[in-house]
Amino acid sequence: MIIGVPKEIKALEFRAGLVPSSVRELVHHGHQVLIESQAGVGSGFQDQDYILAGAQIVQTAIEVFERADLIIKVKEPQESECRMLRDEQILFTFLHLAPDPVQAQGLIDSLCIAIAYETVTDPRGGLPLLAPMSEVAGRMAAQAGAHYLEKTQDGRGILLGGVPGVYPGRATIIGGGVVGTNAARMCLGMGSEVVVIDKNPERLRELDILLDSRVKTIVPTLETIESYV
Amino acid sequence: MIIGVPKEIKALEFRAGLVPSSVRELVHHGHQVLIESQAGVGSGFQDQDYILAGAQIVQTAIEVFERADLIIKVKEPQESECRMLRDEQILFTFLHLAPDPVQAQGLIDSLCIAIAYETVTDPRGGLPLLAPMSEVAGRMAAQAGAHYLEKTQDGRGILLGGVPGVYPGRATIIGGGVVGTNAARMCLGMGSEVVVIDKNPERLRELDILLDSRVKTIVPTLETIESYV
Amino acid sequence: MIIGVPKEIKALEFRAGLVPSSVRELVHHGHQVLIESQAGVGSGFQDQDYILAGAQIVQTAIEVFERADLIIKVKEPQESECRMLRDEQILFTFLHLAPDPVQAQGLIDSLCIAIAYETVTDPRGGLPLLAPMSEVAGRMAAQAGAHYLEKTQDGRGILLGGVPGVYPGRATIIGGGVVGTNAARMCLGMGSEVVVIDKNPERLRELDILLDSRVKTIVPTLETIESYV
Amino acid sequence: MIIGVPKEIKALEFRAGLVPSSVRELVHHGHQVLIESQAGVGSGFQDQDYILAGAQIVQTAIEVFERADLIIKVKEPQESECRMLRDEQILFTFLHLAPDPVQAQGLIDSLCIAIAYETVTDPRGGLPLLAPMSEVAGRMAAQAGAHYLEKTQDGRGILLGGVPGVYPGRATIIGGGVVGTNAARMCLGMGSEVVVIDKNPERLRELDILLDSRVKTIVPTLETIESYV
Amino acid sequence: MIIGVPKEIKALEFRAGLVPSSVRELVHHGHQVLIESQAGVGSGFQDQDYILAGAQIVQTAIEVFERADLIIKVKEPQESECRMLRDEQILFTFLHLAPDPVQAQGLIDSLCIAIAYETVTDPRGGLPLLAPMSEVAGRMAAQAGAHYLEKTQDGRGILLGGVPGVYPGRATIIGGGVVGTNAARMCLGMGSEVVVIDKNPERLRELDILLDSRVKTIVPTLETIESYV
Amino acid sequence: MIIGVPKEIKALEFRAGLVPSSVRELVHHGHQVLIESQAGVGSGFQDQDYILAGAQIVQTAIEVFERADLIIKVKEPQESECRMLRDEQILFTFLHLAPDPVQAQGLIDSLCIAIAYETVTDPRGGLPLLAPMSEVAGRMAAQAGAHYLEKTQDGRGILLGGVPGVYPGRATIIGGGVVGTNAARMCLGMGSEVVVIDKNPERLRELDILLDSRVKTIVPTLETIESYV
Repeated sequence: MIIGVPKEIKALEFRAGLVPSSVRELVHHGHQVLIESQAGVGSGFQDQDYILAGAQIVQTAIEVFERADLIIKVKEPQESECRMLRDEQILFTFLHLAPDPVQAQGLIDSLCIAIAYETVTDPRGGLPLLAPMSEVAGRMAAQAGAHYLEKTQDGRGILLGGVPGVYPGRATIIGGGVVGTNAARMCLGMGSEVVVIDKNPERLRELDILLDSRVKTIVPTLETIESYV
Repeated sequence: MIIGVPKEIKALEFRAGLVPSSVRELVHHGHQVLIESQAGVGSGFQDQDYILAGAQIVQTAIEVFERADLIIKVKEPQESECRMLRDEQILFTFLHLAPDPVQAQGLIDSLCIAIAYETVTDPRGGLPLLAPMSEVAGRMAAQAGAHYLEKTQDGRGILLGGVPGVYPGRATIIGGGVVGTNAARMCLGMGSEVVVIDKNPERLRELDILLDSRVKTIVPTLETIESYV
Repeated sequence: MIIGVPKEIKALEFRAGLVPSSVRELVHHGHQVLIESQAGVGSGFQDQDYILAGAQIVQTAIEVFERADLIIKVKEPQESECRMLRDEQILFTFLHLAPDPVQAQGLIDSLCIAIAYETVTDPRGGLPLLAPMSEVAGRMAAQAGAHYLEKTQDGRGILLGGVPGVYPGRATIIGGGVVGTNAARMCLGMGSEVVVIDKNPERLRELDILLDSRVKTIVPTLETIESYV
Repeated sequence: MIIGVPKEIKALEFRAGLVPSSVRELVHHGHQVLIESQAGVGSGFQDQDYILAGAQIVQTAIEVFERADLIIKVKEPQESECRMLRDEQILFTFLHLAPDPVQAQGLIDSLCIAIAYETVTDPRGGLPLLAPMSEVAGRMAAQAGAHYLEKTQDGRGILLGGVPGVYPGRATIIGGGVVGTNAARMCLGMGSEVVVIDKNPERLRELDILLDSRVKTIVPTLETIESYV
Repeated sequence: MIIGVPKEIKALEFRAGLVPSSVRELVHHGHQVLIESQAGVGSGFQDQDYILAGAQIVQTAIEVFERADLIIKVKEPQESECRMLRDEQILFTFLHLAPDPVQAQGLIDSLCIAIAYETVTDPRGGLPLLAPMSEVAGRMAAQAGAHYLEKTQDGRGILLGGVPGVYPGRATIIGGGVVGTNAARMCLGMGSEVVVIDKNPERLRELDILLDSRVKTIVPTLETIESYV
Repeated sequence: MIIGVPKEIKALEFRAGLVPSSVRELVHHGHQVLIESQAGVGSGFQDQDYILAGAQIVQTAIEVFERADLIIKVKEPQESECRMLRDEQILFTFLHLAPDPVQAQGLIDSLCIAIAYETVTDPRGGLPLLAPMSEVAGRMAAQAGAHYLEKTQDGRGILLGGVPGVYPGRATIIGGGVVGTNAARMCLGMGSEVVVIDKNPERLRELDILLDSRVKTIVPTLETIESYV
């Protein structure tokens, strides 16, 4: 199969659909990979890195879209990209179609086969391509929260974990799923008091034993929400 | 040396000055040990256990006091015991003389050499014979506190560690020494939130790292005492 | 729906079917809640607390039973309560019917719809309303066991966790389900050696990794039961 | 003693020499406390908070300096403040005189008794007023480092703790003292690989057992510094 | 049922099909158990131990095979054993038939009912009789690996956990199933850096939280395999 | 200073007095380093590695001993080496003189200044050059003990940590110093039950909190020694 990776064109998107080590896997399994020149620079990869991994560099997105059977991207296709998609071509990327009827129509008109990362489901009903995003989001949330509590960020000047002799800060986390659990673990690691609120008591039980009683688990009621949020 | 252990006669004292395994150590080092008959029953040791360990059983406290060079007890000597002590005899036991002038005078009159467990000091200034009592006290305090929080004990019906979905109880411990640290460890183990208040910030720092940030450490001020006690 | 909570009348039952924060949730979702006066005093709640949460206080159990579509209680209905239940009224409480044919007949005669907390099943086959009771039971068991080992309770004078220099006590727990796991965690927290015996080796494996090898897991045979119990 | 707290005037200093709870302690011990109006606003305390704690609010720094026996500040005195200090008056604040001959001369000329927080030494040779600053610094360093690794901060787009399936970031910490140990604990808590380099092998041994082998400890040589930094 | 255990005859097999405590269980449930004399000596059990547990000792394997309805062994039947098996007799042991057509034909010819331990499946699809072998294998692997890294074993002279001041060794474990997880836990326990590579990201996620971020989890690609193996 | 490292000549000694990274440190501080050719091969270092680090390779031990002001070795000097030592030359190595009068006389006769690694004392009275050996010894002891318990080593066929469902092995460690503590940590890490016996109750207390109650600490008496060893 010919697999193509155009350079991302949406603002503030630094990632690429494939990193060189992924290219190498695909080539090893017999596929041909086309990378648009400079597609990896935002993530610190040069064209040469892709070439060493077995890819062919092409100069324009047009060439990628013309030759590839399968297009791998990060963000949803922009209007100019939708116009390059064609019948029977497979598009594999995040789509987030719900709030975006223009994109949805563009995809329909293109006659391509679009598969959204966020909807791929594993046999247990999990979302394997979304989970790592949630893990990153949860861990970043703790880090971002700590940052915005700093005085110089117009925060309340609170250090999440306090120091010996001073009561620590408290992180209240609503939802004990992938995002919440990862945020909870980072906050605990920074020494914060952590309260997790979740409607599912079975999940609270799991977190209680997995995190060895270090997290406080709370069932949401009007009263607990008011007290801890 | 002839070492004697009279049966304790103070109310509610079940312990004996020596347990059989200690007798065995002393006999092994060449001493002769006299045990008053039935001295160990409160702790579950029969005369036969002491005989197997190498002791000689004598029938009366009088005989113990007459023959022994060193008397080993648990509690301070009662009036009848003070009268049996004699010149040059060594008494080794808890004394707690401060609030007890009658006993102090009794010991002075006896001309014995009285050494109080609670004042024995090690080279670093520690109190090695008091420390285990403090460890027991701290651990028992947590257990007793948990017990008296029970509804059937006219407590507030609080389970120290809560259960998943319910905020745990809080134990506030004043003083992070041997008693306080042992109480803190037991309370943490039962799942309670634990606050330790101590005037010495260096000790709070030690507890923070030894207990891996699981305990909240607070410097005492009028305000923190009011908030947490 | 009109929801009613009569005051519990079984001896030694201090709890109430609803606490004020639960009342508030129900009122928030559009229900009307009737509380018998003084129903909450055993748990430390005054009528005023329920009124603030949105409930209406009524003076007698008779009025509760007459007006409510749904009766929420803690313990099984006593004989006088069975007589007040009526056709189509829903009763939601612990029933424990198996050993209690008189109650069973009383419920049948009342024509009410009785739902027992202990039989409510979640989609995975768990018992969500029984599990928290089991968690409390397991945690209390450790606390009660520690208490009854005290010398002053006619116990063997053993401190579960021992102190440094003395071998700790051992807790042998039969069954590694919710009760057993919670008891094991509390005993570990108090410093005790913990042995869990369970017929299901898969559960022993889970406990071994969840409790980080701190608990000893044993398959039950005549021999292991004899050794550890 | 009359104790005075002028409002800090150095740029970007939001703290005050005393918070209301400290005022309350001093007043409780019989001292009189003067607070310059608005001294606490940077830390979120209103004049009213200080009044409730027992302080007297005065309108100008001049009045504070004229009436107080002891001046408590945060930052070193600015030129205008040096001129208000007077013979026998005690100044208690951070001084950091080494790089600041102008301030040093100002203090000499004032004939005041200046005590620098950073030089107060405890009986063991520790620096009790500097240690909490070091603890905050170490913990903030981890947080700041994590922040500046973010792509949007022009960092390398590395999440310190990684996520499952991706090798974590590595934090190399030079010096295992108060700052380094606190930074190491926060980095471990965020899931990072942590290497601590310290010339004192005894300290590395302490960290190895205190942090339960989770940190890698390295003796500094040209080679290890080159490899890990 | 009559259950028989012949002495294992394959080289280097020290185990026996049943230990005395298992015999006791079976006898307790009403079965009759025949043990070939000396069957347990390799595991430290004498004939007398089996007799006390309720077994009958018989002198030859022939007698065991003639009388028993069910034969319990450890290793696959050797040629001489296959010839003793007979129609309708049940054989319960490890078989590992795949590479062993001679044994397979022997079993077919014997007309016995052969059940292989390694194929017994539990309701969740697990292999309950294989899992303990995998646990032992994983834990032994860590121990064996540590041993063969010793200089005197012609290894590289590396101590898995290093010592303070020296970077630890690294264990790379391919596969995070039962064997891999047990090996990982032992390596972590010895202070080693541990990398687990597994194709299933969900399993990596589980290990990350179960082992509290102490293990590095990696998705296998040509590149990661090359780097870590 | 000219520093020389002869190749070790005692049987089974694979180490060298200096590794290349240490040579680099010394050269960086202005010293000249002579390495006997092939001195590092037992540790995996080639002459070329030493040359890159700044050393000069010399062909014979005689040349090393003639030119160097300071000789750095691992093992005590053998007879042929003693004869090469000379007046005012400094020898730095392990000596272990107590049981070795021949070596002692050889050193006296040589008029060299011999400093034994094992006697170097730090300001706190510790033995900084012996401690790492003790750490290695303690960690290796656990590993060696595990190895010799294997059936194929004629051991008792016990896996230190057991597996879920089977009671673990027990390691009894006499002495809670550097060796004992390191052995205890490795044994705990392998899942073993660990008992530490030490005469110093203060050390037992430290281990109890440092190892978070996972180790059992026992005071040695005839009775405890008999029970646990």
